[in-house]
Amino acid sequence: MKRTLWYASRPEIVSRGCIVGPREGKGPLADRFDVILEDDLLGLPSWELAEAEMERRACMLCLERAGITQAQVEAQLGGDLLNQLMASGLAAREIGAPFLGLYGACSTMAEALLIAGALVDGGYRKNALACASSHFCTAERQFRFPLELGTQRPPSAQWTATAAGAALVAAPRTERGGIRLECGTIGRVIDYEIADANHMGAAMAPAVADTLLGHFSDADRTPADYDLIVTGDLGIVGREILLELMKERGVRIEQEKLMDCGASLFGREQDCHAGGSGCGCIASVLTGHIMRMLEDGQVRRVLALGSGAMTSTTSAQQGLSIPSISHAVALVSD
Amino acid sequence: MKRTLWYASRPEIVSRGCIVGPREGKGPLADRFDVILEDDLLGLPSWELAEAEMERRACMLCLERAGITQAQVEAQLGGDLLNQLMASGLAAREIGAPFLGLYGACSTMAEALLIAGALVDGGYRKNALACASSHFCTAERQFRFPLELGTQRPPSAQWTATAAGAALVAAPRTERGGIRLECGTIGRVIDYEIADANHMGAAMAPAVADTLLGHFSDADRTPADYDLIVTGDLGIVGREILLELMKERGVRIEQEKLMDCGASLFGREQDCHAGGSGCGCIASVLTGHIMRMLEDGQVRRVLALGSGAMTSTTSAQQGLSIPSISHAVALVSD
Repeated sequence: MKRTLWYASRPEIVSRGCIVGPREGKGPLADRFDVILEDDLLGLPSWELAEAEMERRACMLCLERAGITQAQVEAQLGGDLLNQLMASGLAAREIGAPFLGLYGACSTMAEALLIAGALVDGGYRKNALACASSHFCTAERQFRFPLELGTQRPPSAQWTATAAGAALVAAPRTERGGIRLECGTIGRVIDYEIADANHMGAAMAPAVADTLLGHFSDADRTPADYDLIVTGDLGIVGREILLELMKERGVRIEQEKLMDCGASLFGREQDCHAGGSGCGCIASVLTGHIMRMLEDGQVRRVLALGSGAMTSTTSAQQGLSIPSISHAVALVSD
Repeated sequence: MKRTLWYASRPEIVSRGCIVGPREGKGPLADRFDVILEDDLLGLPSWELAEAEMERRACMLCLERAGITQAQVEAQLGGDLLNQLMASGLAAREIGAPFLGLYGACSTMAEALLIAGALVDGGYRKNALACASSHFCTAERQFRFPLELGTQRPPSAQWTATAAGAALVAAPRTERGGIRLECGTIGRVIDYEIADANHMGAAMAPAVADTLLGHFSDADRTPADYDLIVTGDLGIVGREILLELMKERGVRIEQEKLMDCGASLFGREQDCHAGGSGCGCIASVLTGHIMRMLEDGQVRRVLALGSGAMTSTTSAQQGLSIPSISHAVALVSD
């Protein structure tokens, strides 16, 4: 059964905003982000409040660039990794727009764009703000260990990005031009029985492969139909597993055509092991780096796949494996 | 700005399924549910696995009643209260359909129906399965205290329902007939600075009032346009606060026209204080009791409002107030 939604009007991504933490701001993509924070606490009493404020600022940057006010946002769709979407709930409270909370772990930004596309294309909303955030310090202490422990991590472990991104999807202003949402493919929950929280890339790669194969089959396309396939966030290890899995299924993706946001966010010298992760990683790299590439004509057709590990401390403590999911959206520039 | 989405084709709710725990099965609505569990652990190793299995069974009951297989589900939308949607993720893994994870606390079922309505009405999906679950034992130990403590609760505290519900939204088979989704109103995050986790009704009532007023204004309607206004889950205390808030704003709702799922799920003698709560409460009461009323012609026009308290143990420990949200859907039978 086909899993791809086609947006007949090709909604436009009229604006974008992103913000990253100090470490992300020292990585290879540093000059592609709107704001680099000097202090990842933003002077607030807790990292959770800082994450919420980061998400709010990314949204406000996006709205300012679009020239609209908070009161003109017809829907906000977003999420984060925190229990009960703490950061997004607080950010949405400040924005004040109609809010749909989503959870797809690190695939949340793609899920938000996918639903936003349908709400705008279907004529239900004139615009919809998609957003997501993550914060190293909130994720680390929620999912792993107190930061003060300075716990060692294996090379396959990923580093949760301190970052947030937002994109405003709107009814197209003209028939052609700008960055357009062409279609979206909804992911299924895939579980290859990986139970190691330090090996998320291995857990998520099969979900990305499943969505990628579903998308190619639904749309009758191959990697040749895209200038770039962007995943977020498999990390360095998961990215290689995805290439292997696709090759096994007879789909060859060239090394240079596959960019993983997590594998690209940090430099090797930054000691972030297998790379970045977290809802904010693909959210910021997509709304910073990739959308700039689309605007500048460096690429014209991008397939962006978010990948989420649906794990919790409870499921980990119960020894369960990590169910994963990946949603895809096709972004094209005319 | 208007927050209501209109579904031109009025998608049909072609099927429904629900399942409740032993205590819910001794309440006043007992004979309205499809399945009453004798053992809320379902013979599984953990309550979390039991909740996931409950959600899966509610979905399967719904699909069996619709006469379709899992492979024919074009989208599944759902969520629960557990960190990182543990129950829904595991249920979705077993169903195997394209899955969109949602989080709106106890408003999740309404959020799922609202988005499912747009996906089906917009022609993006032929059908969409909306579902949600909660479990007293998983919620209690995650949000409050170990069950073994037998902690006392104040009278305003609510009792998380052990329940799950699912509804299949599909393209209408005929122009008239059946239960139809007419429109949905997206909620905003509202925060009246209530920080008491034992007083959720007070935190959520203002969010319900906000969505109710938005709906009436958008649709140019009054309570007289509905046979029943269903909220879930304000509980006994929150329900009274909502009536007060609406009266202050000049909207009089008759006592008998307002049914709160939480306030109706348990009998007074069941010692559940202010009543039920949890994503599964409105999900089961809606797909059990209310949809049966619509089928039987006891009511023809129902406005259902889910209400969610976007709180987490982290936000509670940081002394933060409880941001709340309420989404609404109008269900009509011809």
